[in-house]
Amino acid sequence: MRTILLKIAYDGTDFAGYQVQPKERTVQGVLEEALASLHDHPVRVTGAGRTDSGVHARGQYVSFESDRDSIGDEAWIPAANSRLPRDIRTIESRIVRPGLSARYDARRRHYRYYIDESSIQDPTRRRYSFHVGRRLDLERMNDEAACLVGEHDFTTFSVRRSEEENPVRNVYYADFSREGDMVSFAVGANGFLWRMVRSIVGSLVERELKREVFSGQPFERLLSNPNRSEAGTTAPPQGLFFHDVDFSW
Amino acid sequence: MRTILLKIAYDGTDFAGYQVQPKERTVQGVLEEALASLHDHPVRVTGAGRTDSGVHARGQYVSFESDRDSIGDEAWIPAANSRLPRDIRTIESRIVRPGLSARYDARRRHYRYYIDESSIQDPTRRRYSFHVGRRLDLERMNDEAACLVGEHDFTTFSVRRSEEENPVRNVYYADFSREGDMVSFAVGANGFLWRMVRSIVGSLVERELKREVFSGQPFERLLSNPNRSEAGTTAPPQGLFFHDVDFSW
Repeated sequence: MRTILLKIAYDGTDFAGYQVQPKERTVQGVLEEALASLHDHPVRVTGAGRTDSGVHARGQYVSFESDRDSIGDEAWIPAANSRLPRDIRTIESRIVRPGLSARYDARRRHYRYYIDESSIQDPTRRRYSFHVGRRLDLERMNDEAACLVGEHDFTTFSVRRSEEENPVRNVYYADFSREGDMVSFAVGANGFLWRMVRSIVGSLVERELKREVFSGQPFERLLSNPNRSEAGTTAPPQGLFFHDVDFSW
Repeated sequence: MRTILLKIAYDGTDFAGYQVQPKERTVQGVLEEALASLHDHPVRVTGAGRTDSGVHARGQYVSFESDRDSIGDEAWIPAANSRLPRDIRTIESRIVRPGLSARYDARRRHYRYYIDESSIQDPTRRRYSFHVGRRLDLERMNDEAACLVGEHDFTTFSVRRSEEENPVRNVYYADFSREGDMVSFAVGANGFLWRMVRSIVGSLVERELKREVFSGQPFERLLSNPNRSEAGTTAPPQGLFFHDVDFSW
């Protein structure tokens, strides 16, 4: 038995999220079906992140145990892709140390969120961005986003999945930048709570669009007094891309 | 009554092409439904080009007659967009000389075709490009494409829709260029025969991928001896964008 790590990309549009669910087309389900056909027995994969329905990936990772010793490091790429639909692609593969887990050995996770400022949206962008339709003040938004960096209780920016989960995460960077009329928000952390990126983006965009309502309410307060009811709306899933992961090899 | 000209963009993925067909979701059908709801009576639109199923547009034009004199030039943009689904957008509008036809007064039509050279395709590109998965020799392809420019019988590069149609068209430019690993083919003409752009691209790509088979068979021969059976395969629809139109105002 060997442990295999695949880096995968997917278009989340036609998936009911990453995690297996009965009767739904999920990324994990489609991957496990493809790998089962390569192994002639069921294979269980572990993902670095459980993306929601409609969220995309260009750097998701999955690990699994394999007895197919004849398939070498990079040979997993064509082997898997020949059995996968076109909306999931394996882009890298390697044989890793036995027992490595894409979930528990992920050290840093990176996400990108895309915001379309164009007044009338190009229809080919609608599945891959959040259309706000006006120019944002990125300097001001970056000033606010800067306070996210560091170790904080991110309860305000999450939907609680379980009472036991520790809501503290360490954010390494959080920056808005612009290319033409497309804004991207780049964020990296040791891990993310459920809906954390979309909740952060939704809150910051809402503050920007309703600047007069939020004046005098410093953004930092949302971190120093964790309280879910204080957060803004959650930005839609189609703007979010799971970008990459760093591992403890 | 006034004549209105709209410039529209659409994602062709979920349309059975431009032209109205019973029981199918078509661009023309969806536009006419939106405009009928604005007029309280049926409206017939005329398009500059009849794009096939799966083909996109960022510069299609439609003209129609309207008795809604209260809607000014640019006010047609929000009026139409508020009644259209997100995969069609009106991006420009103007009141034009009475009787102007988006079809018969179109002087030059411009198309773009996108070819993805990346070895493993990013899944978010799959609806908007033709994945060939290898680097093409654009210098050689441009040498071949150059012979398309001018007035020629394009029978070889079309599917005959009717016996009466004159197969002669005047091509103004035909050029391949590259940005990163995405190649775009830009072509403009007074008009195009059915499937002409996809047939030209398919033939040129096939010659490039099977260079040894086609050596000694000059591409120009396909124009000097018009014969449909000599053309290569037709490139898939999702790489094609109706880019723009010049009118005789």
